Amino acid sequence: MAKYAIGLDYGTLSGRALLVDVSDGKEIATSVFEYPHAVMDECLPDGKKLGMDWALQHPQDYLDVLSNTIPAVIKESQVDPADIIGVGIDFTTCTVLPVLADSTPLCFLPEYAGNPHAYVKLWKHHAAQPYANKLNDIARELGVDWLDTFGGKISSEWLVPKIWQTLDEAPEIYEKADKFIEAADWVVWQLCGKETRNACCAGYKAIWNKKNGYPPKSFFKALDPRLENLVEDKLGPVTPIGEKAGEVTAKMAELTGLREGTAVAIATADAHVAVPAVGITREGELLAIMGTSTCHILLGSTEKQVPGMCGVVEDGVMPGLYGYEAGQCCVGDSFQWYIDNCLPESIYNEAKEKGVNIHKLLREKCSAKKPGESGLIALDWFNGNRSVLCDIDLTGVILGITLQTKPEDIYRALIESTAYGTRMIVDTFNENGVKVNTFYAAGGISQKDPMTMQIYSDVLNMPVKIAGTTQCGSLGSAILGAVAAGRANGGYDDVYEAAGIMGKVRDTVYYPNPENIEIYNKLYAEYKTLHDYFGRGANDVMKRLKKIASEG
Amino acid sequence: MAKYAIGLDYGTLSGRALLVDVSDGKEIATSVFEYPHAVMDECLPDGKKLGMDWALQHPQDYLDVLSNTIPAVIKESQVDPADIIGVGIDFTTCTVLPVLADSTPLCFLPEYAGNPHAYVKLWKHHAAQPYANKLNDIARELGVDWLDTFGGKISSEWLVPKIWQTLDEAPEIYEKADKFIEAADWVVWQLCGKETRNACCAGYKAIWNKKNGYPPKSFFKALDPRLENLVEDKLGPVTPIGEKAGEVTAKMAELTGLREGTAVAIATADAHVAVPAVGITREGELLAIMGTSTCHILLGSTEKQVPGMCGVVEDGVMPGLYGYEAGQCCVGDSFQWYIDNCLPESIYNEAKEKGVNIHKLLREKCSAKKPGESGLIALDWFNGNRSVLCDIDLTGVILGITLQTKPEDIYRALIESTAYGTRMIVDTFNENGVKVNTFYAAGGISQKDPMTMQIYSDVLNMPVKIAGTTQCGSLGSAILGAVAAGRANGGYDDVYEAAGIMGKVRDTVYYPNPENIEIYNKLYAEYKTLHDYFGRGANDVMKRLKKIASEG
Repeated sequence: MAKYAIGLDYGTLSGRALLVDVSDGKEIATSVFEYPHAVMDECLPDGKKLGMDWALQHPQDYLDVLSNTIPAVIKESQVDPADIIGVGIDFTTCTVLPVLADSTPLCFLPEYAGNPHAYVKLWKHHAAQPYANKLNDIARELGVDWLDTFGGKISSEWLVPKIWQTLDEAPEIYEKADKFIEAADWVVWQLCGKETRNACCAGYKAIWNKKNGYPPKSFFKALDPRLENLVEDKLGPVTPIGEKAGEVTAKMAELTGLREGTAVAIATADAHVAVPAVGITREGELLAIMGTSTCHILLGSTEKQVPGMCGVVEDGVMPGLYGYEAGQCCVGDSFQWYIDNCLPESIYNEAKEKGVNIHKLLREKCSAKKPGESGLIALDWFNGNRSVLCDIDLTGVILGITLQTKPEDIYRALIESTAYGTRMIVDTFNENGVKVNTFYAAGGISQKDPMTMQIYSDVLNMPVKIAGTTQCGSLGSAILGAVAAGRANGGYDDVYEAAGIMGKVRDTVYYPNPENIEIYNKLYAEYKTLHDYFGRGANDVMKRLKKIASEG
Repeated sequence: MAKYAIGLDYGTLSGRALLVDVSDGKEIATSVFEYPHAVMDECLPDGKKLGMDWALQHPQDYLDVLSNTIPAVIKESQVDPADIIGVGIDFTTCTVLPVLADSTPLCFLPEYAGNPHAYVKLWKHHAAQPYANKLNDIARELGVDWLDTFGGKISSEWLVPKIWQTLDEAPEIYEKADKFIEAADWVVWQLCGKETRNACCAGYKAIWNKKNGYPPKSFFKALDPRLENLVEDKLGPVTPIGEKAGEVTAKMAELTGLREGTAVAIATADAHVAVPAVGITREGELLAIMGTSTCHILLGSTEKQVPGMCGVVEDGVMPGLYGYEAGQCCVGDSFQWYIDNCLPESIYNEAKEKGVNIHKLLREKCSAKKPGESGLIALDWFNGNRSVLCDIDLTGVILGITLQTKPEDIYRALIESTAYGTRMIVDTFNENGVKVNTFYAAGGISQKDPMTMQIYSDVLNMPVKIAGTTQCGSLGSAILGAVAAGRANGGYDDVYEAAGIMGKVRDTVYYPNPENIEIYNKLYAEYKTLHDYFGRGANDVMKRLKKIASEG
């Protein structure tokens, strides 16, 4: 009898269930449910206004995903729930909420429904920035040894600034909360009635490390005396990725149509779970998840300090390996910025006449030219630089413009600049003892844009392998669900085996074009010179221009 | 009785006559005649194909300007030709043709009508580039002392490379030509039957200097032994600007409707003659003629070496003073490049809906923002840099781009970059002992674009005065015509007096906005750092990118 697993992928605006055949990873049925409250960035459900940079969610929406999408995929697939052996969950992170000891969100209590701090703080809630800044200052003053492991700076998107903001601005919520928990782990808790915390979210967003755990009490006390016992009071132990969290409860079986006792996997983050979905299991394999921005995850067997990475987490991606994360803030976003702000009417009209997509038309025009032919080079810092410079105040550059420069030249230069940025990350890993042997790409750009993938291959001088699914998150979660079920129940005993069988890459591989390698080596050398000149302090013109702009 | 003068302004595609009241410079009538042969850059009149970078003209078109436009302005104005006391001529330069001793162009002879070298080589005939390169190499090898006076490099647009090309590629034409003469001087020759050569074209385009004349025979011999006697055989003596060349002949009186004996001024170049047209007569006064590119002319009382100027000519602009020339290769051209290649459909549609010009709409949007607010800075090298770096291989840069950058931000940054480029020129003159006391602007941009003129004033921290005419060339020529006539005939005895009375500035002056000066000082400091970094050898990335592009 065929066995199945369900992957639940919680995004920023919706949740998806994907029902997968455990024997080969075949995607049988899928269902998407859009969060009724979406992102609350202007007001609460009762109309109460939120401040600048707030971004909240409503946990009821997460339950509604369960009760809508799981029955839908069961119905569509006609699969017997008895053959669904496991469920896995991935989520945006750090997306965190305060709950009672029984997991009830504080915002479900009528007395707190009007308090913004009782809700889920979404990953992109940036109103905790002042707390992140203070945290970084204090960490530097104290000379903590872990700051470099996290890219030299804790972001406002991370767990501790968000909790600290709650404590400082709504001490009654902090007081009332028995726990603060990642939404990923909260959904697992709902499904199997058991509190767990996954190593991925903890390691990448909560200053947690397998060897040392969280920072010591003294650090939290230095932030705010009231935070001294945060870890023991309101957090909890952390479990590696690839473990079983528990089993679906009777109540949840009723809500979802799953069989009671179905295995539930330890949760994980939506980007990192793409690694098993692409069948990546070995050290030296790097996955770039390319969309509006790019997230890079590289497996390694040892812990090294690599400048500019976002974090390295043991057991955070694959158990027994170190997962290194790096990032580029702005990839598809800069291509879209170009379309919105620079695409001339002539190209727009041509696309309309030919009935083709604008990006496609531009790519056709680009493809007619050779690398280097335009004389342009760009710095891909339209939204700052994540890796390897960790500097949000850097800005974009286009250099080499002449009166002969054509729209497609600029578009291509922007694409190439992101490829150079990726090579900078790959080179930095290699130079710091974490070897990159194989390059995989997932995400929208990898699926839809062959020209860009060829440019990446040419610039990196490496083959580029492409994810075999557009649903990396939910497929990865289904893999973890199949592992949670275990071999005895028709699943797998470990994620390596499961990823090898259920993970997918396309047959198409982009190989570097020998003609282009040398030209791109030259162009990359120019990029590197400009990167270091503007990015490493020789000329801080970008920061000064931002300062002038902000002084207005 | 009122007296009148006619200015004849020969441009690239047409010639204009302007009839002016001598007592106040009032423009009474004007007429434009488009050259029937326009610019011949693909083939000769007989269909014979031309090579790359050729640009020829037909001298018959220049005669047709005389026979069409002069009768037209006489007719339109109803002025008695007896009251037209003088004619002046300005022309593009170096625009040169081979002629017989009686001034007949070789291309008028049937046996040479099929030889491209028998025609007028227009200023932008760039096919002589290899000869310019060889000339510069030899001049540097010989260590000549005059190269720096001409910006360190003789361009392919200049006289000697054009003649050398003729000698080398069509020795029979070189042999047959009794003279090579600027088209400006050839028209004067036609009008008054007398060969003259003006100090402006000779000084700015023919390596001529009042003190030393042309380079010595040994130099020309070093170029090519057959050129040894070029100066004495085929050129001729040079006359200062502001002199009388001769009087209209009977034949020309018949052709034009002018009275025989009407004074004809020594010719001049179309840019430089704008100086008297704006009433500029004193040292320290700089005129920027702003169009697709900008030409700067500054009067000084002594000869100094100023890095990056295009030339300094005694008597070349105003008799008794030194005329310094500098230039920016790309001003309005880069604004238009932006419109053609980067203007998004949204702005295009908004302009259409509002029924306003696109430049005007962009200026409105720009004006709503403060200096520095965009965080952008650009290098205005879209067509290389003329002054002060003299480097055609430099290219444009836009720096500071973010996802929030709007179309109007880029447009404004391009405008500001040209203002910084102008300040670089003004500062360089000041630092090298040629003081700039007053800044005047002429040309299309000065007349139609108040925002740009205000930005120039703010960036320069100087008042900017604006030409009182859109016809600087023909008004300036008319002034020279009135001077050629002399006081006894109702004109003027010198160009200082005539320019003071007939030259015009607008009442509107742009004064620096005190709020903006300090911000622009900061932004200019950033421009200067980037200018020197990319322009003075610290990072020759632009040249390397061009090399990569050319190697294809």
